[in-house]
Amino acid sequence: MSKKKERAYMVDFVLRHLWHKTSRMYNQKANDYGVSISVGFIMLNIDKEGTPSTQLGPKMGMEPTSLSRTLKTMEEKGWIRREVDKNDKRKVLIFLTEEGVEKRRIAKDVVLSFNDRIIDSIPKGKLNTFFEVAERIDMALDRELSNF
Amino acid sequence: MSKKKERAYMVDFVLRHLWHKTSRMYNQKANDYGVSISVGFIMLNIDKEGTPSTQLGPKMGMEPTSLSRTLKTMEEKGWIRREVDKNDKRKVLIFLTEEGVEKRRIAKDVVLSFNDRIIDSIPKGKLNTFFEVAERIDMALDRELSNF
Repeated sequence: MSKKKERAYMVDFVLRHLWHKTSRMYNQKANDYGVSISVGFIMLNIDKEGTPSTQLGPKMGMEPTSLSRTLKTMEEKGWIRREVDKNDKRKVLIFLTEEGVEKRRIAKDVVLSFNDRIIDSIPKGKLNTFFEVAERIDMALDRELSNF
Repeated sequence: MSKKKERAYMVDFVLRHLWHKTSRMYNQKANDYGVSISVGFIMLNIDKEGTPSTQLGPKMGMEPTSLSRTLKTMEEKGWIRREVDKNDKRKVLIFLTEEGVEKRRIAKDVVLSFNDRIIDSIPKGKLNTFFEVAERIDMALDRELSNF
């Protein structure tokens, strides 16, 4: 137990704290542009070729009800439109409208410039180690999840 | 733009991915013990001396309605009890029952042993760099948030 008490940080705590702060920050930026963080994320996940609505939920870890509510709002605002897939009539594809493409560009700028500011403020070698450790944590999580 | 395209990783994506996977893992472990991840987190945040219910929400980033619903369930199961603060009659303190203390011990074991397995699987120097970079990301986030 003494070894455990020496621990200055907890990995899970750091991940939770940083992700919550990041999403708070993105939420504020999104509000500046009159959208929610979910709208921003959905836009970034819609391809030019159209994206099946069923693919968006799992990709973003959003609940189906909250996803469909957000998509409805986006349709009403004229940022997306739905179209039946020509190759598979059972599928509905989601496309960005011209206004949606513009909003997507802003969302992408916000995300890229934030990441660039972070990357520029940290020495490259340290950042590489950060990503290497992140990968090891990811593998450790896979081991934990496969134990069930 | 070419510099941006070289980026192999996005900091925000890695944080989001790792935290979502961590919470999925904790959720599975919590289910094994017949609780939800929220119940586990709440238990870990209740002190022996009693914790004001108003302090729990902000500490855990939980919505007030979902917090009070979870607290109600925990009370019904006999894991917590509420008591008016002797020093300030307007305050309600939350205490763990004997059964709650036992559940808390399990939650703590799950969290500590997961963190230990992670820490043991990563060279100490790299882990220190990881935490150092995490602190720099935290500072960068503070700068972004203070721009509003």
